[in-house]
Amino acid sequence: MKNIGKKIYQLCKVLFPINRSITGDGVRKTLDIIKEQLPHLVLHEVPTGTKCFDWIIPKEWNISDAYIIDPNGNKVVDFKENNLHVVGYSKSIDCIMDLEQLNDHLYSIPSNPAAVPYITSYYKETWGFCVSHNQRKKMVSGKYKVYIDSTLSDGSLTYAELLIPGEIKDEIFLSTYMCHPSMANNELSGPALTTFLAEYIQKIKKTRYSYRIIFIPETIGSIMYLSKHLKYLKENVVAGFNITCVGDNNTYSYLPSRRENSLSDKVALHVLEHSPLEYKKYSFLERGSDERQYCSPGIDLPICSVMRTKYAEYEEYHTSLDNLYYISGDGLSGAYDVYKKMIDLLENNYTYKCNILCEPQLGKRGLYPTTSTKETHEIVADQMNFLAYCDGSLDLIDIANIIKTPAWNLYDIINKFLEHGIISRVR
Amino acid sequence: MKNIGKKIYQLCKVLFPINRSITGDGVRKTLDIIKEQLPHLVLHEVPTGTKCFDWIIPKEWNISDAYIIDPNGNKVVDFKENNLHVVGYSKSIDCIMDLEQLNDHLYSIPSNPAAVPYITSYYKETWGFCVSHNQRKKMVSGKYKVYIDSTLSDGSLTYAELLIPGEIKDEIFLSTYMCHPSMANNELSGPALTTFLAEYIQKIKKTRYSYRIIFIPETIGSIMYLSKHLKYLKENVVAGFNITCVGDNNTYSYLPSRRENSLSDKVALHVLEHSPLEYKKYSFLERGSDERQYCSPGIDLPICSVMRTKYAEYEEYHTSLDNLYYISGDGLSGAYDVYKKMIDLLENNYTYKCNILCEPQLGKRGLYPTTSTKETHEIVADQMNFLAYCDGSLDLIDIANIIKTPAWNLYDIINKFLEHGIISRVR
Amino acid sequence: MKNIGKKIYQLCKVLFPINRSITGDGVRKTLDIIKEQLPHLVLHEVPTGTKCFDWIIPKEWNISDAYIIDPNGNKVVDFKENNLHVVGYSKSIDCIMDLEQLNDHLYSIPSNPAAVPYITSYYKETWGFCVSHNQRKKMVSGKYKVYIDSTLSDGSLTYAELLIPGEIKDEIFLSTYMCHPSMANNELSGPALTTFLAEYIQKIKKTRYSYRIIFIPETIGSIMYLSKHLKYLKENVVAGFNITCVGDNNTYSYLPSRRENSLSDKVALHVLEHSPLEYKKYSFLERGSDERQYCSPGIDLPICSVMRTKYAEYEEYHTSLDNLYYISGDGLSGAYDVYKKMIDLLENNYTYKCNILCEPQLGKRGLYPTTSTKETHEIVADQMNFLAYCDGSLDLIDIANIIKTPAWNLYDIINKFLEHGIISRVR
Repeated sequence: MKNIGKKIYQLCKVLFPINRSITGDGVRKTLDIIKEQLPHLVLHEVPTGTKCFDWIIPKEWNISDAYIIDPNGNKVVDFKENNLHVVGYSKSIDCIMDLEQLNDHLYSIPSNPAAVPYITSYYKETWGFCVSHNQRKKMVSGKYKVYIDSTLSDGSLTYAELLIPGEIKDEIFLSTYMCHPSMANNELSGPALTTFLAEYIQKIKKTRYSYRIIFIPETIGSIMYLSKHLKYLKENVVAGFNITCVGDNNTYSYLPSRRENSLSDKVALHVLEHSPLEYKKYSFLERGSDERQYCSPGIDLPICSVMRTKYAEYEEYHTSLDNLYYISGDGLSGAYDVYKKMIDLLENNYTYKCNILCEPQLGKRGLYPTTSTKETHEIVADQMNFLAYCDGSLDLIDIANIIKTPAWNLYDIINKFLEHGIISRVR
Repeated sequence: MKNIGKKIYQLCKVLFPINRSITGDGVRKTLDIIKEQLPHLVLHEVPTGTKCFDWIIPKEWNISDAYIIDPNGNKVVDFKENNLHVVGYSKSIDCIMDLEQLNDHLYSIPSNPAAVPYITSYYKETWGFCVSHNQRKKMVSGKYKVYIDSTLSDGSLTYAELLIPGEIKDEIFLSTYMCHPSMANNELSGPALTTFLAEYIQKIKKTRYSYRIIFIPETIGSIMYLSKHLKYLKENVVAGFNITCVGDNNTYSYLPSRRENSLSDKVALHVLEHSPLEYKKYSFLERGSDERQYCSPGIDLPICSVMRTKYAEYEEYHTSLDNLYYISGDGLSGAYDVYKKMIDLLENNYTYKCNILCEPQLGKRGLYPTTSTKETHEIVADQMNFLAYCDGSLDLIDIANIIKTPAWNLYDIINKFLEHGIISRVR
Repeated sequence: MKNIGKKIYQLCKVLFPINRSITGDGVRKTLDIIKEQLPHLVLHEVPTGTKCFDWIIPKEWNISDAYIIDPNGNKVVDFKENNLHVVGYSKSIDCIMDLEQLNDHLYSIPSNPAAVPYITSYYKETWGFCVSHNQRKKMVSGKYKVYIDSTLSDGSLTYAELLIPGEIKDEIFLSTYMCHPSMANNELSGPALTTFLAEYIQKIKKTRYSYRIIFIPETIGSIMYLSKHLKYLKENVVAGFNITCVGDNNTYSYLPSRRENSLSDKVALHVLEHSPLEYKKYSFLERGSDERQYCSPGIDLPICSVMRTKYAEYEEYHTSLDNLYYISGDGLSGAYDVYKKMIDLLENNYTYKCNILCEPQLGKRGLYPTTSTKETHEIVADQMNFLAYCDGSLDLIDIANIIKTPAWNLYDIINKFLEHGIISRVR
């Protein structure tokens, strides 16, 4: 396992126990820990009641304890053991009731009896408990004590933002969400990987693009962020990714932007196609995360998603089984490598123009390999093919796609050609 | 069998015995009967000799009797038994001749020996008889009396037109032809179905489009009509269909307009693709009816054809076997349903724009199903997918094609969204 | 075998023994022989040292003798037996050396032991001998006399050009190369076939296009020619072909221009697709001849290549086995026919417009066959289909492709339609 995988996994482990939701102190605590690693991260608070397009920032939810005591006096469900046991945004309750009554507020999955489901009710005030179906089947008739100690009151929604300025104002936009309680792939893998990706970008001496990275709650967070910054984002964002479900070590997944033709899609497809990675291409009709907002009509940001196994496509999804055993350092480092490759490709993806008419004589510049092996043969082919399409209208990815070579195989060649003045950057 | 099928079939039955051609009293009689059902239908007469682009309206042909008496005095061929027995536009003749001589004027199909072929000679004056090959083989040597009592003289070409005004001047153009004598699929099914389709359109409270419906003779009729109205048609017709061969109960057929990209093609393909109908897609190279004129260079009307079994693709075609047994109420009602669906789709095919940025909150408007079943799940998916593509550039059919749902499944959703002001019509 | 094949083969035979290179008297002698057949051919000399874009015209190379005498006094390698024995552009040498030393200057192909390889070193001064691997294995240890009598000195590069003026200034550009010593398919087939093709074009009474035909050395020749005439060529050349490897009787090959969308590509594909010829379509990535220059960025001439077996795709390529047995009269006449068909198609490929709205009445002009056979049926279909697409925007090839008929089947039809004023040429 690569070291980077271990580190990202370790961050997931630290953040796992915290109870997060779309608002509340769990979010603040999570972001504070991430800020230790990314000191330039700025936290923001948006008050309850703020209008965001068609939506309103809801009340802030905090919870200190919750449990169910059965007729025999045993604490059979305990929030302190697993925060998935309480339906997200449950209001307070403290009463005794029959199992029949309680049943209306219990959630379990008969077809996946070992799993505690993840349930929320942000926009309708109610309360409830989630249990494994195995656990539920053991619950006997009788009187149950039901207790939730939570607050639902005016407060604020918390999110964080990091801007890494580059040579130009054009921005790459990275968005990840951290509104899920103790689940690992969906969703601690996203914010954890994004933290290390931000670190990587910060270490590049001077990036070409500026990078804007946000940690938000899903849906209401992206809608809020768009409602505050839409004009700016539309003018400056040239590519971006919604980073989610990047922790397991199964397949890779690609979910396109709505029109499937943005720079982000081009970069994602090139990296996935030209790597020995198996991946599944989804349709925008199978979307389910913040691309629903980023790619909606009138918003139209160039944002797509590269994942490991896509949300809703694995059995453990949205249950207690999506835990630290489901993700792995190998899984995380695989996804990290893909994102690093995409960032590097964005940074290198200029449009080039050959400054010499007809084929340049590479030999006289020492750019022709003097020995002839299979490897040098491929380099020469890449060199000549790259020049043959270097017409000032095609960018690096276009050319690499046409000449059927990974773009990264051309980085050295391009640098040599730039040094010798054989080619120039057009844009 | 649906009631509508029975009714259309009944009209075919009434019109079947009449002897029609491209001109003459049979056409007038046919149109008079249709006018009983469509009182607003207007009959027109175009005089013999009228120039129509490269063509001239021919003489009017009428025929009162025709027969052949064999050497034994038996009337072996009799126009009064089947009007196909006389070659269309035959001049008068009354003489005695040998079988050898007569043979030059006899037409039969050796490979389909029970069928009387349908033959015409509009533009070269001649005469002839059509017989089944079985009948012909029985004809013995000897002297035959050959008699045709017909007139070929200055008169006029008769056609009929119905205009149903809509909210806007843009027109849907429906064209059908009734120049064939006693044959059923090709061609009584077209005018009969069109009669009932006109009735359906007239019953819509207020159509969006205006509808222009013409009953003409094939080829010379469409050329004549285009020569009189080309400028108007090019400015106002947005879609249209040549309605022919809509009576049998075998497959469905689609013959595109020349460029295959008109609104008519889009509507026809959507209805055929999203219905559980088997259909065959033909090429414009396989055209053979009035689309030859409507889609010719410089005319370029947006007209295609949806048929049951296409002309020239069934053995009974252009013979006495294309009779009332070949078509059926089920066949006619199937085609009628397709045309009704296409009309409804044209009426509903607006371009829509979502008025809200990011996903609208449907719950607060009561537009989210409160129960969750497989059916409501599909409705929610259709709702959200429809909105996701509702960007002011795509029309209903475009969106329905992208989200892979029949457009008619979206009619209710659209109406609710319009009521709630979530979307607007752009055009 | 067709007569034309015999004649082209005969010219190959005459030219075969001459020692050619990119410069030198062998080239002049070759062009003098071709000029006997094409008296209007003009020979040009470009001095050593002339700058051509990134390249410089090298010294002129001439060679009078070369051999190796083995330790037993036998002349084991002799330039006079086969001019491939000397590495092209070898400098003079006259000395005695051990086999070990000599080995550094010997070239053979272990995997193809009967073949003498073809090796050159234009831009690095050296010397060497090429031998069959069988021959090499027989060479015993000891002292060898090595002798090359050549000159490498300021002189000039020789090429020839023929202009056949047409009705318009727009040019068809034919380029072929004759810088290879005694090899047949690559490359005597190209200049020999081009000589007869030029004769064919000259015999056409008055061509529509002007034809510019050049005989040059490969690479340095095309770069030189482009550097002298680029502006003119870009303004006037509408199509062209690099004529090479047209002598064997195996498959046909098509190598597209860089963008694959020039008039030349269209013509080549139509002729290959609509002939009963098997052919292989290569990618521009598999280019290897002067299209490397003609199609380079900023040059962008509309030039592609139709070959028999492509260079580098047959075992005999660039060895002594690519000799007069490898090519044949049948092979040459097959390629000649394709080029003739392409020239004829270019001459006929106008854009046409029908002057009559709706279908013209062909019968009254005697353009409808009076008998009805399978053949006349196809002619009628071609006639009507041609008119149906004759809309002033499509050229002959476009229409022929759409209606799935070889363009040459339409030549007669078009001429008749032009005579009757039914259609006009738009451009």
